[in-house]
Amino acid sequence: MRDRYGITQVTIDPSDVSVELATIAESLKNEFVIKVHWSVVARPDNMVNKDMKTWDIEIHATSVEILSKSKELPFNMWEDPKTSEENRFMYRYLDIRRKPVLDNIMFRAQMNHFTRNRFTKEWFLEVQTPIFTVSSPEWARDYLIPSRVNQGQFYALPQAPQQYKQLLMVGWVDKYFQIAPCFRDEDPRADRHSCEFYQIDCEMSFVEKEDVYTVAEWYIRDMTSQMVPHKTIQIDFVRLSYADAMDTYGSDKPDLRFDCKMIDVKDIFGSSELDFLRTAVSVKAIKLWSHPTRKELDALTKFVQNIGLGWLAYIQIKEDTISGSIANKMSQQEKDLIVESMWGAVWDTIFLLVWDQKTVVSVWAKFRNHLRDTFDLVDKDALGFVWIEDFPFFEEDETKPSGLEFAHNPFSNIKWGHETVDTLPPLERETTQYDLTCNWYEILSGSIRNHNPDVLLKAFEAAGYELQDIKKRFWTMYEALQYWCPPHGWFAFGFDRLMMILRDEPNIRECYAFPKSGRAQDLMMWAPSNVDPKELDILGLEMKKKEE
Amino acid sequence: MRDRYGITQVTIDPSDVSVELATIAESLKNEFVIKVHWSVVARPDNMVNKDMKTWDIEIHATSVEILSKSKELPFNMWEDPKTSEENRFMYRYLDIRRKPVLDNIMFRAQMNHFTRNRFTKEWFLEVQTPIFTVSSPEWARDYLIPSRVNQGQFYALPQAPQQYKQLLMVGWVDKYFQIAPCFRDEDPRADRHSCEFYQIDCEMSFVEKEDVYTVAEWYIRDMTSQMVPHKTIQIDFVRLSYADAMDTYGSDKPDLRFDCKMIDVKDIFGSSELDFLRTAVSVKAIKLWSHPTRKELDALTKFVQNIGLGWLAYIQIKEDTISGSIANKMSQQEKDLIVESMWGAVWDTIFLLVWDQKTVVSVWAKFRNHLRDTFDLVDKDALGFVWIEDFPFFEEDETKPSGLEFAHNPFSNIKWGHETVDTLPPLERETTQYDLTCNWYEILSGSIRNHNPDVLLKAFEAAGYELQDIKKRFWTMYEALQYWCPPHGWFAFGFDRLMMILRDEPNIRECYAFPKSGRAQDLMMWAPSNVDPKELDILGLEMKKKEE
Repeated sequence: MRDRYGITQVTIDPSDVSVELATIAESLKNEFVIKVHWSVVARPDNMVNKDMKTWDIEIHATSVEILSKSKELPFNMWEDPKTSEENRFMYRYLDIRRKPVLDNIMFRAQMNHFTRNRFTKEWFLEVQTPIFTVSSPEWARDYLIPSRVNQGQFYALPQAPQQYKQLLMVGWVDKYFQIAPCFRDEDPRADRHSCEFYQIDCEMSFVEKEDVYTVAEWYIRDMTSQMVPHKTIQIDFVRLSYADAMDTYGSDKPDLRFDCKMIDVKDIFGSSELDFLRTAVSVKAIKLWSHPTRKELDALTKFVQNIGLGWLAYIQIKEDTISGSIANKMSQQEKDLIVESMWGAVWDTIFLLVWDQKTVVSVWAKFRNHLRDTFDLVDKDALGFVWIEDFPFFEEDETKPSGLEFAHNPFSNIKWGHETVDTLPPLERETTQYDLTCNWYEILSGSIRNHNPDVLLKAFEAAGYELQDIKKRFWTMYEALQYWCPPHGWFAFGFDRLMMILRDEPNIRECYAFPKSGRAQDLMMWAPSNVDPKELDILGLEMKKKEE
Repeated sequence: MRDRYGITQVTIDPSDVSVELATIAESLKNEFVIKVHWSVVARPDNMVNKDMKTWDIEIHATSVEILSKSKELPFNMWEDPKTSEENRFMYRYLDIRRKPVLDNIMFRAQMNHFTRNRFTKEWFLEVQTPIFTVSSPEWARDYLIPSRVNQGQFYALPQAPQQYKQLLMVGWVDKYFQIAPCFRDEDPRADRHSCEFYQIDCEMSFVEKEDVYTVAEWYIRDMTSQMVPHKTIQIDFVRLSYADAMDTYGSDKPDLRFDCKMIDVKDIFGSSELDFLRTAVSVKAIKLWSHPTRKELDALTKFVQNIGLGWLAYIQIKEDTISGSIANKMSQQEKDLIVESMWGAVWDTIFLLVWDQKTVVSVWAKFRNHLRDTFDLVDKDALGFVWIEDFPFFEEDETKPSGLEFAHNPFSNIKWGHETVDTLPPLERETTQYDLTCNWYEILSGSIRNHNPDVLLKAFEAAGYELQDIKKRFWTMYEALQYWCPPHGWFAFGFDRLMMILRDEPNIRECYAFPKSGRAQDLMMWAPSNVDPKELDILGLEMKKKEE
């Protein structure tokens, strides 16, 4: 007999039951719901099963009543999910009976519970911001809701509660938090749930960056030690600038749980006798603390070709010699220099990633992560937390008349204070925005806000926006900042993505009780669905006729 | 100086400050944000102000920095809200600075906090059900969201998580709760927030009505004693059938904190010399334990005419006589009988509500509540909790071919067990549905579900639905109930309405940090708003052209 809490053996004593009870007992099938009158007894010594929580007891039934029968299951849910995701999601109410699925649902409840209590304990005030709000099409795509009462107009679901939480600061709620539902009409992917997702959303007044970091760090420390005590924080909130992260790891969310820095060694090969090295636009070296087999090296070469990187070369340091794909074409000086640059030692392999065009840095990161997975360089229960800072404020955008677009949230402050808005060229300005990354995922974004309405206007002006337009479009924020507004800052954790990492789930859909499919559908409830044209009519809408 | 936590006096010692500090101090105006270096000192004895929390201290500033200035406020928010609700909502970020508004926001956070922890403690599992789901137009009106990825189709926001929580029971989550956002496209009113509202939502397996009542009652008892210790439970979860509630109080949410039962006394006046009494279709008597003044009685008569009730008559019992509007036209027998029926005593007034058509019972309740308010019959800090039970399962509906429609949720079970579906005529069937009411508000609904798929079909069949249609429309529920489903029951508290009562707020909008207006608008964010036709185009939609 099984329930939410476990499984227990129920027995019927054949020497001591009525014919009626025996008949019922014989008719029981898998997944029937039954009601049992019982006494608990110790299991016979030879029947003890230490794998079960209830290993030492069983239940002797004195009566059994069938409360509900089950027809044959549409798939065998007790074997590991060999059935398709589609089947699992269509019959999610059966899928939930499987332990790993129920465990995730319970974990999520506990994580919600822990999070809210922890922030409340620190005087953060939970405020539920509206789910029906206004469209701001300048960021990601909004989901729209046609209004019946105000026909011809539309609500939008919030992409995040950004403006509301800033307005709470204007309204002197100095510490706000919420596990906030957010909605972005983006195409689904493995680490992005479609339709809705949740963020642990905070905003604080009278803070600087260090204050915000402190809050995020105590939350993560306490949460992980409570919720996933088997995991350890291996990388303890290291800080890295965006430029260094891109240069050394080829990524703004690098996995620092293993070394494998990428070092620029192009200069060493300026007069190499190997053409592809001598003429390369970039040569990056990565060190591995072992000697892969020939087969492994061939597979790595193939991988490099598949991801579209130029060439992979390598040398291996042995007791008395250096071998490898290009060793016999290298001068002694080149060998000495590369070993020195890379702090090489016996049993190291040094890979050279060689590229003859302007480098697409993301492929470096792909190679580096591939090394991690191939040679098992990280402990899967290790967590690596890295702050990424000093992002550029603007990026080049040729489609804009100004040639500039905001690289991140325009409401973030400029680094080095408000004054720099007048002194630094736009592309040299950096934002106070920061990300927290963990194990190759971005799990948090935040910044110190720009609370000065004049400087906010200047930022939009630099990006080529019309001031009148901005004042109108962001009227509420612009107006509000003029009635005292304390300096304030924020962060938002991606709740579901954080949970993915803590639960070792490769797909974010597993973090929801009732997930949407990879095509943004609720397969169990058949959503989205067609609606009666009369319903659209009430809203003053109709489907656009397809042109022939 | 003021912040979220209170107000403190800041002083600058005129004998001991720099010219610079004096200048800054003089330039300060209301609502500026400042940063102060300070020391705390005791206030001089003659300056102590015991009305303030910080009555015995003040702060001596040694430096003052202006962090942010404020332009002149759009309305004087420090006087009681003489400004319009429209103004308050448009500048909600300023309105929030007022203590009663901030107090409500803090109360809501605490009520959320208490509620979640209390249910979690009892092993209820919090599950976040989807916000994007499927339309079920048979109940209230859905809000629709056009899908971009699945063009031509629509999501709907859930009116309640009903089907999801029943499916959790099928999935063996035996105790579920959630503070669930719900969405119904209904016209706003004082006790119904438009767009979104929240309910404390529970579903439990293997329960009967008494189990569900127990949970709701411990929640209310604990919550009120923690959150509103100044309030007392005067009516302690009395139970009343729907029929008795309507007959005795003219309402299915009667306020039982004061007596004033309505007694049918028509038979007494069968041979009255007063025509309007003798020929009346209904005569209800209500007793008040005092003698109102002539002026008050005239006002009551006028009130009765205004609400469209027939006539109001009354008698007043004095030491040695009976006086009143009809006393001299009553026989001694009539006087004796009415005093006896109403347990009348000296100083009682007995009102007669006289009606010459089929009675509209709701006007009785209006009169009864008017007595309550006029004569101050209840303590405003008293709470009266009343369970209303035994609702009819079906009601007559002439527009349906079957002549019947569900009076309540069709997924609720029929009283007296499944068998009665075959034996009782539809209009005599009662539902297991129950409401909990408090002080003239409905604050909870719930029922024991129908977990038998065959009986569910019979219920729909009795209401005249086509079986094939039902199987298709509720395919998921119908299918799910066939793979073991335990008996289960539910309730949902209206979170916001409960908060209204506990905070003595006459309007539900005051329970939200950022409320919608009475016209379903977010006046601060200007939602809903027009959107670019290009956005509709992407969704395959267009506004319907108005016919000339």
